[in-house]
Amino acid sequence: MTTTPADSNADSQFNRKAEAWSARFSEPVSELVKRYTASVFFDKRLAEFDIQGSLAHAEMLHSVGLLSAQDWEAIQQGMAAILQEIQQGQFEWLLDLEDVHLNIEKRLIEKIGDAGKRLHTARSRNDQVATDIRLYLRAQVDDLLSLLRDVRTALLNLAERHAATILPGFTHLQVAQPVTFGHHLLAYVEMFTRDSERLQDCRKRINRLPLGSAALAGTSYPIDRARVAATLGFAEVCRNSLDAVSDRDFAIEFCAAAALIMTHISRLSEELILWMSPRVGFIDLPDRYCTGSSIMPQKKNPDVPELARGKTGRVTGHLLGLLTLMKGQPLAYNKDNQEDKEPLFDTVDTVRDTLRIFADMIPGIQVQTAAMEAAARQGYATATDLADYLVKQGLAFRDAHEAVAHAVKVCVQRGVDLAELSLAELQAASGLANAAALIDERVFSVLTLAGSVASRDHVGGTAPNQVRQAITAARHLLQQEAQ
Amino acid sequence: MTTTPADSNADSQFNRKAEAWSARFSEPVSELVKRYTASVFFDKRLAEFDIQGSLAHAEMLHSVGLLSAQDWEAIQQGMAAILQEIQQGQFEWLLDLEDVHLNIEKRLIEKIGDAGKRLHTARSRNDQVATDIRLYLRAQVDDLLSLLRDVRTALLNLAERHAATILPGFTHLQVAQPVTFGHHLLAYVEMFTRDSERLQDCRKRINRLPLGSAALAGTSYPIDRARVAATLGFAEVCRNSLDAVSDRDFAIEFCAAAALIMTHISRLSEELILWMSPRVGFIDLPDRYCTGSSIMPQKKNPDVPELARGKTGRVTGHLLGLLTLMKGQPLAYNKDNQEDKEPLFDTVDTVRDTLRIFADMIPGIQVQTAAMEAAARQGYATATDLADYLVKQGLAFRDAHEAVAHAVKVCVQRGVDLAELSLAELQAASGLANAAALIDERVFSVLTLAGSVASRDHVGGTAPNQVRQAITAARHLLQQEAQ
Amino acid sequence: MTTTPADSNADSQFNRKAEAWSARFSEPVSELVKRYTASVFFDKRLAEFDIQGSLAHAEMLHSVGLLSAQDWEAIQQGMAAILQEIQQGQFEWLLDLEDVHLNIEKRLIEKIGDAGKRLHTARSRNDQVATDIRLYLRAQVDDLLSLLRDVRTALLNLAERHAATILPGFTHLQVAQPVTFGHHLLAYVEMFTRDSERLQDCRKRINRLPLGSAALAGTSYPIDRARVAATLGFAEVCRNSLDAVSDRDFAIEFCAAAALIMTHISRLSEELILWMSPRVGFIDLPDRYCTGSSIMPQKKNPDVPELARGKTGRVTGHLLGLLTLMKGQPLAYNKDNQEDKEPLFDTVDTVRDTLRIFADMIPGIQVQTAAMEAAARQGYATATDLADYLVKQGLAFRDAHEAVAHAVKVCVQRGVDLAELSLAELQAASGLANAAALIDERVFSVLTLAGSVASRDHVGGTAPNQVRQAITAARHLLQQEAQ
Amino acid sequence: MTTTPADSNADSQFNRKAEAWSARFSEPVSELVKRYTASVFFDKRLAEFDIQGSLAHAEMLHSVGLLSAQDWEAIQQGMAAILQEIQQGQFEWLLDLEDVHLNIEKRLIEKIGDAGKRLHTARSRNDQVATDIRLYLRAQVDDLLSLLRDVRTALLNLAERHAATILPGFTHLQVAQPVTFGHHLLAYVEMFTRDSERLQDCRKRINRLPLGSAALAGTSYPIDRARVAATLGFAEVCRNSLDAVSDRDFAIEFCAAAALIMTHISRLSEELILWMSPRVGFIDLPDRYCTGSSIMPQKKNPDVPELARGKTGRVTGHLLGLLTLMKGQPLAYNKDNQEDKEPLFDTVDTVRDTLRIFADMIPGIQVQTAAMEAAARQGYATATDLADYLVKQGLAFRDAHEAVAHAVKVCVQRGVDLAELSLAELQAASGLANAAALIDERVFSVLTLAGSVASRDHVGGTAPNQVRQAITAARHLLQQEAQ
Repeated sequence: MTTTPADSNADSQFNRKAEAWSARFSEPVSELVKRYTASVFFDKRLAEFDIQGSLAHAEMLHSVGLLSAQDWEAIQQGMAAILQEIQQGQFEWLLDLEDVHLNIEKRLIEKIGDAGKRLHTARSRNDQVATDIRLYLRAQVDDLLSLLRDVRTALLNLAERHAATILPGFTHLQVAQPVTFGHHLLAYVEMFTRDSERLQDCRKRINRLPLGSAALAGTSYPIDRARVAATLGFAEVCRNSLDAVSDRDFAIEFCAAAALIMTHISRLSEELILWMSPRVGFIDLPDRYCTGSSIMPQKKNPDVPELARGKTGRVTGHLLGLLTLMKGQPLAYNKDNQEDKEPLFDTVDTVRDTLRIFADMIPGIQVQTAAMEAAARQGYATATDLADYLVKQGLAFRDAHEAVAHAVKVCVQRGVDLAELSLAELQAASGLANAAALIDERVFSVLTLAGSVASRDHVGGTAPNQVRQAITAARHLLQQEAQ
Repeated sequence: MTTTPADSNADSQFNRKAEAWSARFSEPVSELVKRYTASVFFDKRLAEFDIQGSLAHAEMLHSVGLLSAQDWEAIQQGMAAILQEIQQGQFEWLLDLEDVHLNIEKRLIEKIGDAGKRLHTARSRNDQVATDIRLYLRAQVDDLLSLLRDVRTALLNLAERHAATILPGFTHLQVAQPVTFGHHLLAYVEMFTRDSERLQDCRKRINRLPLGSAALAGTSYPIDRARVAATLGFAEVCRNSLDAVSDRDFAIEFCAAAALIMTHISRLSEELILWMSPRVGFIDLPDRYCTGSSIMPQKKNPDVPELARGKTGRVTGHLLGLLTLMKGQPLAYNKDNQEDKEPLFDTVDTVRDTLRIFADMIPGIQVQTAAMEAAARQGYATATDLADYLVKQGLAFRDAHEAVAHAVKVCVQRGVDLAELSLAELQAASGLANAAALIDERVFSVLTLAGSVASRDHVGGTAPNQVRQAITAARHLLQQEAQ
Repeated sequence: MTTTPADSNADSQFNRKAEAWSARFSEPVSELVKRYTASVFFDKRLAEFDIQGSLAHAEMLHSVGLLSAQDWEAIQQGMAAILQEIQQGQFEWLLDLEDVHLNIEKRLIEKIGDAGKRLHTARSRNDQVATDIRLYLRAQVDDLLSLLRDVRTALLNLAERHAATILPGFTHLQVAQPVTFGHHLLAYVEMFTRDSERLQDCRKRINRLPLGSAALAGTSYPIDRARVAATLGFAEVCRNSLDAVSDRDFAIEFCAAAALIMTHISRLSEELILWMSPRVGFIDLPDRYCTGSSIMPQKKNPDVPELARGKTGRVTGHLLGLLTLMKGQPLAYNKDNQEDKEPLFDTVDTVRDTLRIFADMIPGIQVQTAAMEAAARQGYATATDLADYLVKQGLAFRDAHEAVAHAVKVCVQRGVDLAELSLAELQAASGLANAAALIDERVFSVLTLAGSVASRDHVGGTAPNQVRQAITAARHLLQQEAQ
Repeated sequence: MTTTPADSNADSQFNRKAEAWSARFSEPVSELVKRYTASVFFDKRLAEFDIQGSLAHAEMLHSVGLLSAQDWEAIQQGMAAILQEIQQGQFEWLLDLEDVHLNIEKRLIEKIGDAGKRLHTARSRNDQVATDIRLYLRAQVDDLLSLLRDVRTALLNLAERHAATILPGFTHLQVAQPVTFGHHLLAYVEMFTRDSERLQDCRKRINRLPLGSAALAGTSYPIDRARVAATLGFAEVCRNSLDAVSDRDFAIEFCAAAALIMTHISRLSEELILWMSPRVGFIDLPDRYCTGSSIMPQKKNPDVPELARGKTGRVTGHLLGLLTLMKGQPLAYNKDNQEDKEPLFDTVDTVRDTLRIFADMIPGIQVQTAAMEAAARQGYATATDLADYLVKQGLAFRDAHEAVAHAVKVCVQRGVDLAELSLAELQAASGLANAAALIDERVFSVLTLAGSVASRDHVGGTAPNQVRQAITAARHLLQQEAQ
């Protein structure tokens, strides 16, 4: 194969864009259409990945004899210069050139002439953009995985300090049973661990190479897709060209995982806001994470968790947007797909900023242990312990439950806690003769908060002992994951 | 009431922001938090409306004696200067000042001193931002109503030219009955008319004044809310301050209406794309609304309808985002609400750009009447007419349906259309003795396309006659609406 | 026009269903397909409306001479008998007959022979089902409007009893300013009033008659659509047949309105749950609205508001399901549309049951006025009043805000409320010389809760006086609406 | 530990439900509330899994000495009898008993007395229901994985028959390049393969045991969670009790995977509908998958793919419903979570029925190879081949693209295909001197359809050769997966 010298109207297609899309067109694209359809102002953030993909493609073209050594050399130098221009903010992005791909290609041709025009051999923008997004998203996923580790580390550190701090565990926002604050925080560690698992699973499906699919059917050039995949670190090549250029599953799967991350953040935020409300007062947030009011001088508002909770909707919305986008699309690439980018970019940005700020804020949480413990003494938190005590004395569980319910009713009427009844009162309050007979002085030890939490001493239970073991295990998992 | 001379540390709250939110805070907001919580880079688009609202508020303060004449004068001049700075791109928006409100207020104080500090009397950012969004959205709704009229006018003009052009009407994408292209286009006029109705209904609920609700409870100053409402052209004042500062129903209702607009656009787009596909070939779009391919030189792609179809997901996503945002929020204002703006702004932009480009593109649609008519001759489009003919001869409808189904089956097997059968064949094909007896030569007139469409001559029917009447009525409605 | 005697194979189409769809088909529908595509088990709830629509159609056919008097009489009697069978649970719904329409028509033919076969003249299932849904939804909207009035009445009654009960108003779940509980409840009255407005607006677009559109193009029979509309109480006829058979906007608009209703319910529920949590304790719910725990004998859980909050997702999900359903559908009717019914029905059921139970539960709310007032004394709720006091003494608002922020910081450090400082301390705490000079004994009256709420005495403000006026106005509106 | 003889008021808690929830309550739950909060009429489908979980729990209780041998024996016998009653439809489900758990437990106590009352020792409904759903969903996932294999097998069989059948490949619904139908079908095999991967990944997170978490904090009994996990085939135990009872991530992740399955189904459906439209005519569906029209006797509608496309919205809606449900929920269990079941069940049903019917329908697709090939000859499908030919002759790609665009424009104007031009015309049409010089007789071989597809002979390309290799590889993968 020979290459001709640079043609005089070398960059004709690009220059003529101002007139008509190609020789096949008899009029230029209207200004309105140009603005409506251009993507360059948001897809330019793919520039680094576009260049990375182009270089891997060119290297392969060279390796199979489709690109001369000089051309390959010129493309490398041209791209290096362009990357520098972009990084230094000197690259001029042109709306007329539609997208990141044509902007960079045009600039390359300006710089190195015909060699630049040979770069697009054996590929199409369809497989090019699909490759760019996957390179971009893979990098973002790795970043988010790291941030999820930071958040978990922050939670583990706080949990360790509060492995034995007691607060009321709530169900239905009613006091249920005493739990340790460390245990409560570990629930979120579990959630973010699952989020990590999901991102890792999703990454497998991101990490496949579409390049080589060309417009939709593959190419008649003798390309070496495995080589490009290896250069770019992809684990596999996409196995079907029609699918490869139109597949956005990986973006949707990522957004679904992101929506779950934000759902967990929203739950944690809800609790932080509740806990910081003066009626609860379990924690305080440092002033640097709060803002005031333009009218109420006393206000100190937990803006960060509130805003994070609000951002859940944004990410869920993007997920729905992408699902709606793909619904009913016939094969292969349709222009609709251009709408995949902004929601994806915004999802990445939102989740990254949110995780970063939570990793930063969590160590600053100030725990009001006295308020927590006081609250745990309210609401009959140890009623289940009393029922369990009766069962261990031989009562059937359902009967024990009824006996304690009786006792609680008496306490509610008298405005006292279970532990405040005398033994005789407690026996009387149970309402069942066979229950009363089983209650003796030992009962008071099971009605203490510390006794209650310590007794839940099995895998997953709230006993300080278990919390510490769970922290150790979680730290070990984090180390493994980071490797 | 007297006013003191400008205090030496007049703009203290703003200057000290770099240190701490207010005197109540002991450390400044962290840089991360500042970036995470700032809204100025997107809410600055409310600037014009913020100033408009501030001026109306100041005018009222003056009218009730809460602001001196000099102060009121100074505020007017200061705001005029600021508006000019903004419009000329000379206003420096500062992240440190969080949002559009504080940026403008700070600048006002720089310009006019203490008078500026008195502006925020009897209001809060909570009612201020609620007012700004309503002013903004009301203006956008009026703009969209105008664009919806443009789109409908374009459709009506095209429908008028094709009041008698026949194409196959589809159900299930199978040929159903012949319809006129004008009639088909009028279906979209109906949809966009309903969209207009919905926007007008939504506008009623936008057009209520929250200002005067202050932070959440109203204010102890003797304000005159009706006066502010009149100045700003609001039809009513919001009747409850707690609701007024936290209500975003109007934004959600708007986004729901917008999602329906985009759903209609997506249906029209789907049809344009189908119609332009070479297997169908009912229309062509001018080159200026299409783009080509970087690899396939023959391509001419209907980018605009494809992208518009894709943007449906975006708008639906924003609707969901806002609903998720508000779900479960306790009263009154929470920081979550700051997340209302970007989805709302992007919804407005997307719908506006899309309607504008459709109003521009529709007149350029090139109709291939021959291809349409040829298609209508395929698929037994007049089978219903044959059934109706039999009923009019006295057969019960259900029997007529069966007789024609028989005849169609014969035609499918022989690869011919109903009109291509001879009278004897048609009689035989009906499969029912009593049907055959009713068929005579007159049947062939009901099997013509023109006869078929002309016969559907009642309100809402596809007869050219009805189409023209419907166009006249629609034009009349448009004129009324525009007044 | 003459009618023939009942044909011997009169109900052939229905009987032959077991073999093939019609004479045009060569094999019966597969069992799997039959089950997959049948709608009778959910659309049978439209039966009453289907009969109502059929009777109006038949009456019109008779009036224009398309149906004999005997046939019209027979149809009336047949339908009356069928309606009775359905209401008494004796009607046998057959999967083989697909949907409610064919089930009823088949039964009619069984009962009255050929007259039944003439009923389907000049209509199609496409316009028939569109009519049925609109009749159904119109009735449901009227029911929901009535329930919304019940809920508002319950809120107004409670608000009236607590027009002067003080609780802390929250923003960001931090104490903001004291408000009256009546005022707080009125915020929800506003929300549900807007919901009523939206349903009424939506009803206008439901209340249009699609019948007469036939399959998609209208019909060649000389029908009188206005007559049918009048019989059925529709305000207008749908103006375009293609649109009429494929339009589901009204269902989507209804679901959007329903999603907002549920969003309001979710906000109220969130507050009820919070208020009933032992740390807050503002209200209690009667035992009959709560359930216990299978393991924790002391539990009393606010199941109703929790479940209602959860059901928000369900309704929002249905809205998005319908939007997704319609996205990109070409004209006219497609089978996709059958999927409109279950989400719509479930939305109606969910909103109706929820409103009914809230109307029932609200009067039972037990208000803990002492707890509310105690909470209002915590969190510097009257700081804004102090700032306003200073402004009224002549300080610029921004300076007053700073002075009070100073004072609050001192209070936080000393663990006391503003009203607990002595005059000298208050003067010193303000931190600004010009502020201190303005503070005298009169300041303590503005720091009381009652003084604070009473001072917000303008339209929309929290003063008991305003609350009572607002209740009167709301009752008046309710009466008007109910007429 | 000893067990007491059956108490006289043994089932008191259940009997008294009619009066009050427990002794702690002073009035019964209202009828409205009972209906609003009951789940038994939808959660009874969990019965089999509830019994399975209870038996594993009881076996463990026995193994650790918390349940006597006789009790364990009685529970086994009682549950066996109950399971039989349920399977035979003889079990009476009572609304008064709220849910599947209490219904079964009550029946057990009726049958075996006190032993039944001991079953609930060391567990709560919170961990019980979480276990039930996971057992249920794990079984459903396995079923769906099997159905996904069936659908892929059906596609592979059809693809194999059409490995060399040529149709136009579309982008933007415009003719792009010729592809093989086998290749096109394989794109869907890829999608459903990814769906399988996702379900398998999701299954890992389903397959963890919550039982032992009790209400929220674990239990004070010496339970053996690993033993229960092993009995039930769970790979792990949930590591945190608070998380375990409130986690519904697995349901959301499943619904997200399901939404992608339905999105793929919607894309395939869209194509089937398009292909069956008379203007395209690429395929026909057997009569048994289609239905007719009540009014248009000729109609044969592709109901199954249309309805499947419509059901996409339903599943997407459920996903969003669940995300909305969990947003902002504080720990641990809240009643909101009861709303997880109906969307989950309906998602499972919808996906299962849809996959089943597609697996059944795909083999029946009748391919119109002649129509496909005729369509591929329309629209300049081999223009890219001509450009590639020129590049291989030495022209830079961008210049070749322009030369062919010129030639296409000439063809469009003259209404002919590229292959119909003479050599001289083709040379002239290219518009570039250097391009013309490179064109000789060999060009006509690259303009054939068969030559075009055969030339795309690399992994993922459309060449029949590659299609066959891909089929073999996919069959191999299916076999591995099924093991």
